[in-house]
Amino acid sequence: MTFKIENKDPGSAARAGTITTAHGDIQTPIFMPVGTQGTVKGIHQSEIRDVVNAQIILGNTYHLYLRPGTDILKKAGGLHKFMNWDLPILTDSGGYQVYSLKGMRKITEEGVKFQSHVDGSRHFFSPESVMDIQRIIGADIVMAFDECTPYPCEYNYAKNSMNMTHRWLLRCIKRMEETEPAYDYPQTFAPIVQGSTYPDLRKESAEFIAAQGQDMNAIGGLSVGEPHEDMYAMTDLVCNILPTDKPRYLMGVGLPENILESIALGIDMFDCVLPSRNARHGLLYTKNGLINIKNAKWQDDFSPIDADSPAITSRTHTKAYLRHLFKVEELLGAQIATLHNLSFFIWLVTQSRRKIQEGTFYTWKEEMVKSVSQRL
Amino acid sequence: MTFKIENKDPGSAARAGTITTAHGDIQTPIFMPVGTQGTVKGIHQSEIRDVVNAQIILGNTYHLYLRPGTDILKKAGGLHKFMNWDLPILTDSGGYQVYSLKGMRKITEEGVKFQSHVDGSRHFFSPESVMDIQRIIGADIVMAFDECTPYPCEYNYAKNSMNMTHRWLLRCIKRMEETEPAYDYPQTFAPIVQGSTYPDLRKESAEFIAAQGQDMNAIGGLSVGEPHEDMYAMTDLVCNILPTDKPRYLMGVGLPENILESIALGIDMFDCVLPSRNARHGLLYTKNGLINIKNAKWQDDFSPIDADSPAITSRTHTKAYLRHLFKVEELLGAQIATLHNLSFFIWLVTQSRRKIQEGTFYTWKEEMVKSVSQRL
Repeated sequence: MTFKIENKDPGSAARAGTITTAHGDIQTPIFMPVGTQGTVKGIHQSEIRDVVNAQIILGNTYHLYLRPGTDILKKAGGLHKFMNWDLPILTDSGGYQVYSLKGMRKITEEGVKFQSHVDGSRHFFSPESVMDIQRIIGADIVMAFDECTPYPCEYNYAKNSMNMTHRWLLRCIKRMEETEPAYDYPQTFAPIVQGSTYPDLRKESAEFIAAQGQDMNAIGGLSVGEPHEDMYAMTDLVCNILPTDKPRYLMGVGLPENILESIALGIDMFDCVLPSRNARHGLLYTKNGLINIKNAKWQDDFSPIDADSPAITSRTHTKAYLRHLFKVEELLGAQIATLHNLSFFIWLVTQSRRKIQEGTFYTWKEEMVKSVSQRL
Repeated sequence: MTFKIENKDPGSAARAGTITTAHGDIQTPIFMPVGTQGTVKGIHQSEIRDVVNAQIILGNTYHLYLRPGTDILKKAGGLHKFMNWDLPILTDSGGYQVYSLKGMRKITEEGVKFQSHVDGSRHFFSPESVMDIQRIIGADIVMAFDECTPYPCEYNYAKNSMNMTHRWLLRCIKRMEETEPAYDYPQTFAPIVQGSTYPDLRKESAEFIAAQGQDMNAIGGLSVGEPHEDMYAMTDLVCNILPTDKPRYLMGVGLPENILESIALGIDMFDCVLPSRNARHGLLYTKNGLINIKNAKWQDDFSPIDADSPAITSRTHTKAYLRHLFKVEELLGAQIATLHNLSFFIWLVTQSRRKIQEGTFYTWKEEMVKSVSQRL
């Protein structure tokens, strides 16, 4: 994997670049739609590529490990072939999902014991086993096994957790060095900065992660409930320590305004379930603000869902029709809304990239943040 | 609406023709995907047209009357505009759905009182009101308001019901003659033959319907649980009485083998929820038989879902992948399976048409009936 920065915004730390992987290029800043179980819920692979215009998607190691499982994925020749997707994939480490299994998991220095949310069966994830699983899934970019602390988090818990995440990181790196990719293309490994909302911990963690000299770096443990100011402060602090010439991935972020502000701080990559999950609840993101399509006000509004949407379904169907589909709980409602939101998020980062190239990102971002934060 | 018969099969009563409507031509024999509530569940309108290759879809008057309701449909300019579908539409009369509301409806000479399955609210359908509703929905072909008798059905009930259906038919025709289309294109009205599985009643009903001289005729009350031999016997009897030069529509039929046998008896049009409903349960129709994709035997079968399918998603995705989607209850499973089944049903009637044109339908049909009846 290589990363080339092509443009820097004069008014902020934003940059436009290109990541090159075995499955194609990724133009940054980029947003990655979440394809939890080998599918971006409700849309076809051809639509992810040609309607949403995604350049990379994210898979969840925890879910793929449980179903279809590593045996099937190995026989299939990896996740790309299994789901018939030949552009880049990134997999998370499963950590975030495992910690969410409240009362069904136990964290120790060795790793995490947990019970499956599907059938209650018992499993164990360690830094080593998670690297092995990600080898079999075969994503282009694989993430370190870390502990993602909740918000709020006691200082001492955050500090101990961060230190364990750092020790786990060294075990992940060792395992990656000792093993080979399962298929005929290389995999890039990305460590994750933790430290909750404590500046001294974030600084220490960012310095530790930077010192590993990996080809890409990530920031975890944000967008977990903390105030947006804290998210931005931590992101800014960490971006000033992580190497400039490596892609920076802010995990699990977020709202359109969060993405714009974080691009300004020097972030290159994003993922979030919000656009796809909220689509299934009838919440539509547009450049003029949020639409709750279930509201009665749209019932006889025969204007397009969004005349400016990159998704043809949002330009050719009306708000009244989409509201009807949600009111009668038809699958097509979620399908149209998901195409809408994901194509908007990709438009947002693509437009950011264009503005960075033109050197006008900062002023455009200031206006767009106000615009997207409205409710229609 | 016009109907032109272009070819007749030398070995059976099958014929190939073209129905011309204001929204385009329909090449017969044809299968109509069911779009109950203004959407064919789980697939986009562009996919109905370009992947499934449907030439006409069916809407359900009962469901559309309840939601979005006639006010919204009228403001939208009719169902075509509301759902952004510019090929032909046929609407049923709502009768079948209303009779299914066991314990929540009362049938009298005047019409049917019923309670909504959505909120229990009280409504009344009469032959006149159902014609008015179908004017507002604006389908190209609208169906008579009839009583669809269940199976088995006592002779006297079937006879009385048939006679009431005939009286209702005259009221429907009168209402259609007294009213104008709500939009700028004509609507074709189709009466329905009833009479359960009693040959004398079917004969009487077919003669009554034929005498009305409408541009299209339909056969109702079959595929409701009776043996297939009875279905074919009644269809054969009725087809020999209904005019040859008008399209014949066999309502609610059916399995691939039912469609093939009925084409041989002179049926031109079909609709059925089976391919779309069963798709959502993981049952796939192919020319080699039925696949239950949830079966464990497919879990590591990496061959295409169906290499011969007209749907690209069935050619490019594997059985193992589709099984995974069903096991983890992902929306995309139903989407891929629905595209598969509907495109297979359209392939089946299109292929029938080709064989009729070539004069080889009968022998091909005999083999295909055996083939599609298998379980894989």
